[in-house]
Amino acid sequence: MASNSFGKFFKITTFGESHGKAIGVIIDGCIPNLPLSKKEIEKELEKRSPGKNFFSSSRKEEDKIEILSGIFKGKTTGAPIAILIENKDKDSASYEKIKDLYRPSHANFTYLQKYGIFDYRGGGRASARETVLRVAAGAIAKKILKKYNIELLAFIHSIGDIEIENKILDLEFKKLFNLTKKSPLFCPDKTSQNKMLSLLKKIKEEKDSIGGSIRLISTPLIPGLGDPIYEKLSSELAKAFLSIPGCIGLEVGRGFMASRSRGSENNDRFELKNNKVITKTNNSGGILAGISTGMPLDIKIAFKPTSTIEKPQETLNFKNEQKILKIDNFRHDICIAIRACPVVEAMAAIVLLNALMSQKTLKI
Amino acid sequence: MASNSFGKFFKITTFGESHGKAIGVIIDGCIPNLPLSKKEIEKELEKRSPGKNFFSSSRKEEDKIEILSGIFKGKTTGAPIAILIENKDKDSASYEKIKDLYRPSHANFTYLQKYGIFDYRGGGRASARETVLRVAAGAIAKKILKKYNIELLAFIHSIGDIEIENKILDLEFKKLFNLTKKSPLFCPDKTSQNKMLSLLKKIKEEKDSIGGSIRLISTPLIPGLGDPIYEKLSSELAKAFLSIPGCIGLEVGRGFMASRSRGSENNDRFELKNNKVITKTNNSGGILAGISTGMPLDIKIAFKPTSTIEKPQETLNFKNEQKILKIDNFRHDICIAIRACPVVEAMAAIVLLNALMSQKTLKI
Amino acid sequence: MASNSFGKFFKITTFGESHGKAIGVIIDGCIPNLPLSKKEIEKELEKRSPGKNFFSSSRKEEDKIEILSGIFKGKTTGAPIAILIENKDKDSASYEKIKDLYRPSHANFTYLQKYGIFDYRGGGRASARETVLRVAAGAIAKKILKKYNIELLAFIHSIGDIEIENKILDLEFKKLFNLTKKSPLFCPDKTSQNKMLSLLKKIKEEKDSIGGSIRLISTPLIPGLGDPIYEKLSSELAKAFLSIPGCIGLEVGRGFMASRSRGSENNDRFELKNNKVITKTNNSGGILAGISTGMPLDIKIAFKPTSTIEKPQETLNFKNEQKILKIDNFRHDICIAIRACPVVEAMAAIVLLNALMSQKTLKI
Amino acid sequence: MASNSFGKFFKITTFGESHGKAIGVIIDGCIPNLPLSKKEIEKELEKRSPGKNFFSSSRKEEDKIEILSGIFKGKTTGAPIAILIENKDKDSASYEKIKDLYRPSHANFTYLQKYGIFDYRGGGRASARETVLRVAAGAIAKKILKKYNIELLAFIHSIGDIEIENKILDLEFKKLFNLTKKSPLFCPDKTSQNKMLSLLKKIKEEKDSIGGSIRLISTPLIPGLGDPIYEKLSSELAKAFLSIPGCIGLEVGRGFMASRSRGSENNDRFELKNNKVITKTNNSGGILAGISTGMPLDIKIAFKPTSTIEKPQETLNFKNEQKILKIDNFRHDICIAIRACPVVEAMAAIVLLNALMSQKTLKI
Repeated sequence: MASNSFGKFFKITTFGESHGKAIGVIIDGCIPNLPLSKKEIEKELEKRSPGKNFFSSSRKEEDKIEILSGIFKGKTTGAPIAILIENKDKDSASYEKIKDLYRPSHANFTYLQKYGIFDYRGGGRASARETVLRVAAGAIAKKILKKYNIELLAFIHSIGDIEIENKILDLEFKKLFNLTKKSPLFCPDKTSQNKMLSLLKKIKEEKDSIGGSIRLISTPLIPGLGDPIYEKLSSELAKAFLSIPGCIGLEVGRGFMASRSRGSENNDRFELKNNKVITKTNNSGGILAGISTGMPLDIKIAFKPTSTIEKPQETLNFKNEQKILKIDNFRHDICIAIRACPVVEAMAAIVLLNALMSQKTLKI
Repeated sequence: MASNSFGKFFKITTFGESHGKAIGVIIDGCIPNLPLSKKEIEKELEKRSPGKNFFSSSRKEEDKIEILSGIFKGKTTGAPIAILIENKDKDSASYEKIKDLYRPSHANFTYLQKYGIFDYRGGGRASARETVLRVAAGAIAKKILKKYNIELLAFIHSIGDIEIENKILDLEFKKLFNLTKKSPLFCPDKTSQNKMLSLLKKIKEEKDSIGGSIRLISTPLIPGLGDPIYEKLSSELAKAFLSIPGCIGLEVGRGFMASRSRGSENNDRFELKNNKVITKTNNSGGILAGISTGMPLDIKIAFKPTSTIEKPQETLNFKNEQKILKIDNFRHDICIAIRACPVVEAMAAIVLLNALMSQKTLKI
Repeated sequence: MASNSFGKFFKITTFGESHGKAIGVIIDGCIPNLPLSKKEIEKELEKRSPGKNFFSSSRKEEDKIEILSGIFKGKTTGAPIAILIENKDKDSASYEKIKDLYRPSHANFTYLQKYGIFDYRGGGRASARETVLRVAAGAIAKKILKKYNIELLAFIHSIGDIEIENKILDLEFKKLFNLTKKSPLFCPDKTSQNKMLSLLKKIKEEKDSIGGSIRLISTPLIPGLGDPIYEKLSSELAKAFLSIPGCIGLEVGRGFMASRSRGSENNDRFELKNNKVITKTNNSGGILAGISTGMPLDIKIAFKPTSTIEKPQETLNFKNEQKILKIDNFRHDICIAIRACPVVEAMAAIVLLNALMSQKTLKI
Repeated sequence: MASNSFGKFFKITTFGESHGKAIGVIIDGCIPNLPLSKKEIEKELEKRSPGKNFFSSSRKEEDKIEILSGIFKGKTTGAPIAILIENKDKDSASYEKIKDLYRPSHANFTYLQKYGIFDYRGGGRASARETVLRVAAGAIAKKILKKYNIELLAFIHSIGDIEIENKILDLEFKKLFNLTKKSPLFCPDKTSQNKMLSLLKKIKEEKDSIGGSIRLISTPLIPGLGDPIYEKLSSELAKAFLSIPGCIGLEVGRGFMASRSRGSENNDRFELKNNKVITKTNNSGGILAGISTGMPLDIKIAFKPTSTIEKPQETLNFKNEQKILKIDNFRHDICIAIRACPVVEAMAAIVLLNALMSQKTLKI
């Protein structure tokens, strides 16, 4: 079943395996007459580019893109925009040795169950490499959203047991944005960041990996975005985030905390501010009944620890014999949540742009 | 934008407002030749029928259904099945008084922002009454899934701060199923249930409401269900659950707990059991890389406290004047998580059936 | 596979069999705040109501509708509009005798092949009775289109070998509209109409049926409607018309005539008229490269003769034995093209409204 | 609005402009484990390759493809297959001179109306060059269909007033297939072909173009393909064909001829042949009530004359001034119907494969 597309209006379709010739994304439904250059997209891609830090894969993904279509004289034409990225710095050899082993909590078992065949080189289609393409498409979505004063920011909320200080969230969007930008971990809270760096170092030494969580916020949204009943803004965001490799949970607003609260403390009270109806608190995370309230988005997203670890693991091979899985030439992130930050931003941008395009339609 | 449908193969489309003439669901894509009676569906509806307990709405929803189409001589024909439920025991009068007030954390503000008009009687289209229809359609989905040995169970995991004992999860599916069935709260753990009942009584006396969480489990799934990249089983379940009124979070497998863990402790080790490859633990909740592993589903879903409380609340009216919202003739659940249990089951069934229909297609 | 819906923005989903309890349509995606009454819709339904003329079925379809949802205080709310029509004046008894015979060029053979079960009463789901629902939904679509100055007219172009005079097409839209409205055959050309009536009488006497064709025209469209490459306006119209029972062909503009022509004679020359760019001729039927030119639509649609005839026919029964099919209590149209006129209009309206809603979206 | 995809199960998404860097297609939903090579696809592409005959464009489209993804060790993996074709032998210079003129019956006027921008080089996105990609994807669809004994053949039925002899259709599929293959015009009837070649020569001398029609037939289909009500096999085929540049009409079975006939002569009588229920005639073209009967498909498709002609044409420029359009370095087909034959086959294959994948799903 075709399932490699996302979005109805601004629709992305991706292709490509981690160690194939190239990966690519088709963006179908982009508004025409938008000035667009390669550079703008590449700048966004740099954010998730690995190889710069000890805690991320040493694979060098320079990620120079090529735009094959949809642009004429520097502007979008309304035709599909195809973006291609060649796969370089591949090292498929190390996968040959482990190609007949079920890898714990990895994709190869389920892909084999589903398809009866698996491109094991670098994780094939299941590799997080695919998310580069989401960031590329997201760069365009973000550019359009900005014209509607919608900006997004995803930052590290926790790694292992280390959580950022809650007061950091009291900062205004722009400040948080800048603090996040400066951090190699996308963590706006310097004290916590340093603790996280120590933890990551330790985890690396122990040849292990660690989970983490991301917080996504936005500038105040346009109210009225999201389509009840089955295409609520929250539903679409949940679907989008859970499609990111390693994502295993999310909380809109106070989430599970709200599930432990009373209505009288959790309800967001309406108030007037600068002649605009706002809510005093934003426990709802910017969404009520699946529709944006006009307050900022506020969502937390959980990522599991990288399933591939350097430490040897007991497992089975395809003949169901007990074996030891040992990864040579280890080139994996030890905390996938970090590089997932720009991906979360990109997916949120694509969801929001679609909601905006759905809303800004026919009126009489 | 049309957004009242869910599912591609077994597709439901619902209509109707809480206090309109009737509500209904069209099930399009049901397999033909399935024996089906009104009674089977009504039996499932009884589960979420309110009016029986002090903690749920006193509205009497007998929910006698009428099947208008799609059945011939007691069997499905492959044509759409239309199910109609008349709205009885309506009391719209009490809504007249509050119709010009923004209701905190309720749908009326955002619906007005989106549509410029809101059927305020009983919450209109945004009412949880719509979920009856999901349960009706889910009854059919469950019947088909059962033929593939897939059964589902949603039970109360927590209300407020009271959580069920973890050991209860060690019980086998059938036992949990029976314990849950007997409980007015869908809570399989009697000790916790009684504490929850006391809490609910207290909350009711205080004219407040309370949040809760649900755990969804299944019998072992067929491996290979779910379509990467953007229609992962986890993505579709997330979308489905977040579309349920009041749902504000979910965790697949260990969820946020996994985000605090190391790979070496979180990874599920493959083992052989009765000549079948299983995982020793099920931290992944039955899904890897978006595809079912063959282990049971295990998902937690958070629900916020009911936004409508009996306690008076400060708010604004549509003219932005400060007012007090006071609900007369209060007929709301004080903990929506409880009655959401059968809805969670129904949505999970619809997602799984669609995944099954997607998987069981052309092979050469 | 779910396949009973049409349209993305203004989406209809229909259900119901010819002799079931009721038939109905859900309209999902209608713009909010549109004043709408039952009467407006019933007025449109009268157009295709049978039982008034010797050449149409004697079944009395009064077609009183009930609107179950989506309207509040006389206006649409943006929620799905459910319209229900009870099935009256059913006579299923006559179908019992022929229920085990394959009916030549009828749906029962293919439905049985596909589903293994067929509701034979009145043709079940395959009956043209379903088209009443399209006309009901189309009435709403037409009302919205009218606000954009788009009006549609479908009239009989030919019955058997009798074609209307081409010069009739030189009349302006409003005149054609009024002439068509007055004719029991939806034929604006009185001379041809009378010949057609004689032919129909003869066909009826001979217990046979006859084919016919419809011409669909419109007022000048808004240019820019239709989405290349695969959702061209012409593609969507073709899909829509071919979904009408009995439709077996269409021509956009000059159609097959164009396939016999040269470019120099077929090309539509651009001209200026009242400071607006128009084309001198409209051989393209209002569509170029799948997008509306701003000229009126002009499409011809072919309908086969009713497959059910009073004349006895040789056939096979389900045991593959040779039998004679003889219809008792014959209640069928002898020329389905006639009553298909309002259905063609309705489907065209739904396609155009969707194209309009697709076009009138985000701009920067 | 995203509109560059076709198909639900086996879904194609195309991108690229006539004179851009490259064009490409993503095939999403291809079954896994299908052996597939570049050569198989290129062989199919040769069929529509221009530059070989005086009557087709002199542009050399060698159309060497590159497969970027979805294949592992010579087999499909279930992941999207991306096929890329570089654009060579471009000559954009000749388009500079006419870039500000509305071209009669061409795409540039409507694209400008819709998007406000048009990549005029070689017709940009509206160019028939996009159809190469359909043929590439169709090659895969055909390979799968062949395993179900479904083969397709599209051949020239008429050019201008010259029609093939009807008796040619009495030949069996394989013979027609071979005769068509040998003809530079895809015309199985040698006598007619020669007349057509003379006509084409004359048209070329007169610097004009000419329309034509195509007949599509198949081997006997599996009965039961096609989904009522709105996704009938005939509806989907109509949508598919009308999406081909220049297509302006179609007839399923006898089409407009049926609209002039009586039921008694048009109905297809059921008979037993080799213990299989067939119809004596195939006036229905293999489809009844939108579902395949098991007889061969038989559809006629009309193509208008190429809008671009060498002959000078009066027109307007973008400032609405009267101008003469004169094409330099003319490189267009004078009869687009000819090269549309493999495109019709490809689109039919994609529609049928989707119908097959829809039908071969869950059964109990």
